[in-house]
Amino acid sequence: MPSDTPQPAFVLVRPQMGENIGAAARAMLNFGLDRMRLVAPRDGWPNQSAVAMASGAGRVLDEAVLVERTVEAVADCTYVFATTARQRDLTKPVMTPERAMEVAREKIAAGEKVAVLFGPERAGLENDDIALANAIISVPVNPEFPSLNLAQCVLLTGYEWRRQTVETASEVTEMAGSDWATAIEVDRLAEHYEETLDSAGFFFPETKSDSMRRNLRNLWSRMPLTQADVRMLHGMLRQMVRWKTKG
Amino acid sequence: MPSDTPQPAFVLVRPQMGENIGAAARAMLNFGLDRMRLVAPRDGWPNQSAVAMASGAGRVLDEAVLVERTVEAVADCTYVFATTARQRDLTKPVMTPERAMEVAREKIAAGEKVAVLFGPERAGLENDDIALANAIISVPVNPEFPSLNLAQCVLLTGYEWRRQTVETASEVTEMAGSDWATAIEVDRLAEHYEETLDSAGFFFPETKSDSMRRNLRNLWSRMPLTQADVRMLHGMLRQMVRWKTKG
Repeated sequence: MPSDTPQPAFVLVRPQMGENIGAAARAMLNFGLDRMRLVAPRDGWPNQSAVAMASGAGRVLDEAVLVERTVEAVADCTYVFATTARQRDLTKPVMTPERAMEVAREKIAAGEKVAVLFGPERAGLENDDIALANAIISVPVNPEFPSLNLAQCVLLTGYEWRRQTVETASEVTEMAGSDWATAIEVDRLAEHYEETLDSAGFFFPETKSDSMRRNLRNLWSRMPLTQADVRMLHGMLRQMVRWKTKG
Repeated sequence: MPSDTPQPAFVLVRPQMGENIGAAARAMLNFGLDRMRLVAPRDGWPNQSAVAMASGAGRVLDEAVLVERTVEAVADCTYVFATTARQRDLTKPVMTPERAMEVAREKIAAGEKVAVLFGPERAGLENDDIALANAIISVPVNPEFPSLNLAQCVLLTGYEWRRQTVETASEVTEMAGSDWATAIEVDRLAEHYEETLDSAGFFFPETKSDSMRRNLRNLWSRMPLTQADVRMLHGMLRQMVRWKTKG
């Protein structure tokens, strides 16, 4: 059973290699997409090469809808995107994947059905396929080296879908089993180092002593220290003292 | 010669298959990136499978910098990202590709040198490699099916770099050799249809005539018509009249 999550259908139009169908299924499932539609795959259907390549994403292939013509694949859709690299002689909005998946998100949230067409490996979509679409998706690649393959185009579109629809913290800090040190803990650390280093005659000459102390305090406070870091730094210093007193 | 455009270096750490090195080169060049560094590729260097797969992106391989250890690959860099799928037991910021390439853009604009580490195919980066990094990049994939390969991880990171640095109109309408129709042209079209349809007895019954006229006018004005569309619509109607008068 496909997932319940509302999502666009990805339509592979006349795909040639089974491997690419399998790779597209994997690319889709990476981003939580599992509604594939297939228009007249060259080597028939089902296809063993597709299954072998899909491995863990075989479910996407099992549930894929097979049709003969592109129009049947989008018959129930109210908004259709066509992915294409080349400029076409058709008046049609051309969107980045980012903008397109933003539009898709809005339409799907409003209850519409959305599909994205992907063309065959060599030639891409024909103009008759594109004429069925409301808008074109064009990935902004280096114009001197545009070489995205079918699964990569599916991957980038799927990535943008997930980026637009699944809230992800853009930056978190992974804590390896320790909380951040508090200001008082850092202050005690600074104190410990300052006193010990003072005994060791580190703050010399006298005229520079104040600025050296200030710089050292500042060093600790601008470090992102965890409680474990603070414990380790205390331990290092205690060990140096122990080593010294042993002579 | 690599391009002059300031950009992050992409470092492939102990890559296994030559094909994947070639695919990574293609993925990079799609997004205008051409500074590859290689740490101890398993099958030696240069590698014929890499060259065959890279095809048009062979230049990226020719200019790749080969080193023995990860630390040598990032020796000149002031900020290093490590890409990884698994959770690691290290205290380190974890960023989305989007956030990471935003940080990279800012640092590179300020004259810093930035690198991104990508691990070997099977196991990914080792903790010793990751310890060299200032931050981790983690692609927000479906947690139930995370299956990005090396070239795909390079592709998504490269895509985000370009998305953050190259201004692209998010939506433009491709015009197939015709400008948009002006309001007066659309008004004349509405007039033409209204008069002809009136003669044909279309606005019937009388009680509904006003709302039918209003709906028809509204239909034209909410269509995104080009001048070529308007000419075709005038022509269609004239032809119907000609056909009728012949009849």
